[in-house]
Amino acid sequence: MSERIVVVGSIALDSLETPEGKVDDAVGGSASYSAVAASFFSPVRLVAVVGRDFPESAVELFRARGIDLEGLEFAEGETFRWGGRYHTDMNRRDTLFTHLNVFENFHPRLPASYRDSEIVLLANIHPALQAEVLDQVDAPKLVALDTMNLWIDIALDDLRSVLQRVDLLFLNDEEARQLSGEHNLVRAAAAVREMGPRTVVVKKGEHGAVLFDSDGAYVQPALLLERVFDPTGAGDAFAGGFLGHLGRLGRTDPASLRQAMAVGTVLASFVTESFGPQRLAALTEEEIGQRLEHLRRITRWPFDGAVV
Amino acid sequence: MSERIVVVGSIALDSLETPEGKVDDAVGGSASYSAVAASFFSPVRLVAVVGRDFPESAVELFRARGIDLEGLEFAEGETFRWGGRYHTDMNRRDTLFTHLNVFENFHPRLPASYRDSEIVLLANIHPALQAEVLDQVDAPKLVALDTMNLWIDIALDDLRSVLQRVDLLFLNDEEARQLSGEHNLVRAAAAVREMGPRTVVVKKGEHGAVLFDSDGAYVQPALLLERVFDPTGAGDAFAGGFLGHLGRLGRTDPASLRQAMAVGTVLASFVTESFGPQRLAALTEEEIGQRLEHLRRITRWPFDGAVV
Repeated sequence: MSERIVVVGSIALDSLETPEGKVDDAVGGSASYSAVAASFFSPVRLVAVVGRDFPESAVELFRARGIDLEGLEFAEGETFRWGGRYHTDMNRRDTLFTHLNVFENFHPRLPASYRDSEIVLLANIHPALQAEVLDQVDAPKLVALDTMNLWIDIALDDLRSVLQRVDLLFLNDEEARQLSGEHNLVRAAAAVREMGPRTVVVKKGEHGAVLFDSDGAYVQPALLLERVFDPTGAGDAFAGGFLGHLGRLGRTDPASLRQAMAVGTVLASFVTESFGPQRLAALTEEEIGQRLEHLRRITRWPFDGAVV
Repeated sequence: MSERIVVVGSIALDSLETPEGKVDDAVGGSASYSAVAASFFSPVRLVAVVGRDFPESAVELFRARGIDLEGLEFAEGETFRWGGRYHTDMNRRDTLFTHLNVFENFHPRLPASYRDSEIVLLANIHPALQAEVLDQVDAPKLVALDTMNLWIDIALDDLRSVLQRVDLLFLNDEEARQLSGEHNLVRAAAAVREMGPRTVVVKKGEHGAVLFDSDGAYVQPALLLERVFDPTGAGDAFAGGFLGHLGRLGRTDPASLRQAMAVGTVLASFVTESFGPQRLAALTEEEIGQRLEHLRRITRWPFDGAVV
């Protein structure tokens, strides 16, 4: 039986500009993408806040994915809004505005029914809020955390504190460098593992992701995409797909973690094909399987037996 | 029986600064690294020019690798010199100086004994010189070419002309974008394949390399290196190892090309561990085999059977 995953993070309405187009008020936020991605593999419980203006169609999108919404708070005021513009090199983006709105006074409150969750995903929000979540779960088997450069800049003490309670950390290459003070990724990951999380996954956007754990390292290339509409949420979907797969397996051994790298990569790839999580939410198991098979085909080890 | 590879390119004395150190007059140049790397797998014939100041120890390094030096010209004057400084991000470097010296009037002359070479590697030199080489070989089974941004900038017509006579092109991601005018790598590679070479290998430094051919794409991650002393020559060793492996197999089918990606990656990784080609030249078959096995371990597909 699949393990239950509680996802805590942000839900936003995003205004986005990429070289391929622009959109206003697309459903976004770390929790949105993570929860939808995980829902293909394991039962998901959502903890987040939205305002009264949050569209019912978006709530319906979560509901249709079978996501437990008891922990979704509808607060007085407007939903968190974020505006961003991507460069031609879509690994780089500028934040145009951030309106916290209802997020400003948010404190995650887990429904009693969520406390027995086996897996916790602390998606990207302030690390102090991430710590509050850990005080409200009973005995999770796996605690994973995603973060961003902003918290390394302005809330480093809170981040380092919560990292001591975390099994698995997702962050991108620049964040790994910033957090560790090491430019080399291998050394950066080793330094970050010393801070608490025994497993560190460094996301490198179009260049894939690298996992570092007690068994060494594992390198997962990304899919080769002919057109990227919008990379927003890809990292969150990666984390969601990753943990969803672990929940489905009920295992966190090194081999399972490596499979999760591939599953996360596939889920992330779908996110980039459109603005918002609609494409992701509409996936079929068959589409996921086909893309996983495609990933295998473009990356499988080319030797049959001995190599030299 | 292995096929014979003729390597034509530059031999230089490099002055290099990296975050890990600096060195003057290290043996460098595209032909040096390519020829030494290829020599582990196939017979190699070298065509290049050096000055009277070129150290006998470097000639001995080539000779010890069994490289045929009949085509190595010793000209009056000084050896080509290049100075470069790498940034903390070693994917970026600045050229400090370029003294062409004996290279200025160089025209490759292939000894008669080289004309039957099955494989031609036109390592990075002016594309007009690369074309002169092709006029001097009988009927090679595979013509490969490596180039750089400089020739795209100042000799684009010559480059486009010689590309029509080439089977396989090595270039890095920025060069692929520059040559094609396409930012997206998949579209860039497709555009470059239209220019002549049916196989295109896009090198991405620490992020590995991607091959595009009639069978689709293949993504080869790089090794994870804890310390990079000097990336100079890594791309050239990649090309040399790649073609050396094909020569050893006597095949250029898609499966063999994918194996060559892994072999090239391994040879390139050794180059970064020191200044100059000494480390590369001193490799044993066992070391190459061990690193190939390590590459397999950190990249192998994590699922056994069906994936979803």
